Amino acid sequence: MAKLRAHNLAVSLDGYMAGPDQGVDTPLGVGGTRLHEWAFATRSGRRMHGMEGGAQGIDDSFIAQGDEGIGATIIGRNMFGPVRGPWDASEEWNGWWGDEPPYHHPVFVLTHHPRPPLPMQGGTTFYFVTEGIEAALDQAFAAAAGADVRVGGGASTVQQYLRAGLLDELHVAIVPILLGQGERLFDNLDGGLHGYECVGFSPSASVAHMRVVRVAAG
Amino acid sequence: MAKLRAHNLAVSLDGYMAGPDQGVDTPLGVGGTRLHEWAFATRSGRRMHGMEGGAQGIDDSFIAQGDEGIGATIIGRNMFGPVRGPWDASEEWNGWWGDEPPYHHPVFVLTHHPRPPLPMQGGTTFYFVTEGIEAALDQAFAAAAGADVRVGGGASTVQQYLRAGLLDELHVAIVPILLGQGERLFDNLDGGLHGYECVGFSPSASVAHMRVVRVAAG
Repeated sequence: MAKLRAHNLAVSLDGYMAGPDQGVDTPLGVGGTRLHEWAFATRSGRRMHGMEGGAQGIDDSFIAQGDEGIGATIIGRNMFGPVRGPWDASEEWNGWWGDEPPYHHPVFVLTHHPRPPLPMQGGTTFYFVTEGIEAALDQAFAAAAGADVRVGGGASTVQQYLRAGLLDELHVAIVPILLGQGERLFDNLDGGLHGYECVGFSPSASVAHMRVVRVAAG
Repeated sequence: MAKLRAHNLAVSLDGYMAGPDQGVDTPLGVGGTRLHEWAFATRSGRRMHGMEGGAQGIDDSFIAQGDEGIGATIIGRNMFGPVRGPWDASEEWNGWWGDEPPYHHPVFVLTHHPRPPLPMQGGTTFYFVTEGIEAALDQAFAAAAGADVRVGGGASTVQQYLRAGLLDELHVAIVPILLGQGERLFDNLDGGLHGYECVGFSPSASVAHMRVVRVAAG
């Protein structure tokens, strides 16, 4: 059965998936880009952004696994762009990801504001879903046509799927930096995370990879 | 100059230094003992509790470092025992740690309730400090006579010294388990941790060791 997965969720030693003051100039919050340096050092991470070179090894393998068998992705609106409220009528701004986003498959954006589908270069089409996380999941599984669906982030979107017990597995990379404040991954979980267990620990020289799976029905 | 250090702070993947519902039967909260299995598997960790055997290697080395050069320890009242309010007049209950606590030096217990010093076997004497964290620190440095002082825990005590910028360095071991809820290490920090940086990442096969130092004056 197709699964809902989250991969390469980079979290600081003090628990943050983004630094404070997320905005147009700092989409990952202050200091947040430091969470992803290990990924940009890998071959798969670099290729994803059109760059050559990069290291192979444990980190590269985890980055690559994040794409394997994935047919559609769900992201929160913040991961599409920093704009708030209704979409601009001109709709000229098409997200953080440039003309050719690194997804190459349908991407479902959780939002409160409807907008027509937005086809981009390279096979990515952004679909804007206003009916909530379960509707987005149904649409994503349909689009994936038997392949798995990925929750791309951010923290709030992952939390919504965790709270609902809908996420089958997640891979967290603990990064040895302190952000001090920001947006936590394991937060807003209605009194705690239940029904999940950490089943894998694979540290590299840069980060500590943890694999978490759902062990109880959602 | 003598330092204030914290060592072997075991924290779950989701950030908890103790599980929920800490009490007489579960001093580390529900599931909290799982945070320390890696330590009890080491030679130094076992020796500390009068047991033979145990593994050497990275984890053992970190456990041993936690004792090196330490002349006195400060702990919160919860780490002495679960009793709340004024001490019982009979004072027959002498803490979690048994007749011969694994400190072998003066231990300063933060409390709101005065109690005479309590000498135990093996060189540990518990002193009960009611004048706050700075007074405890002064007394501990005096007792350590030039050696370093350790903050033993728990989370709330570490946080108080972090907030005051008095902790010079800390060693955190991220343990690949989920506790779901409980008491976080990096919490109650008045809007965030400031002036500290993670300067070391040494994963073992069991946990991810992180070394954090103060980089700005407290």
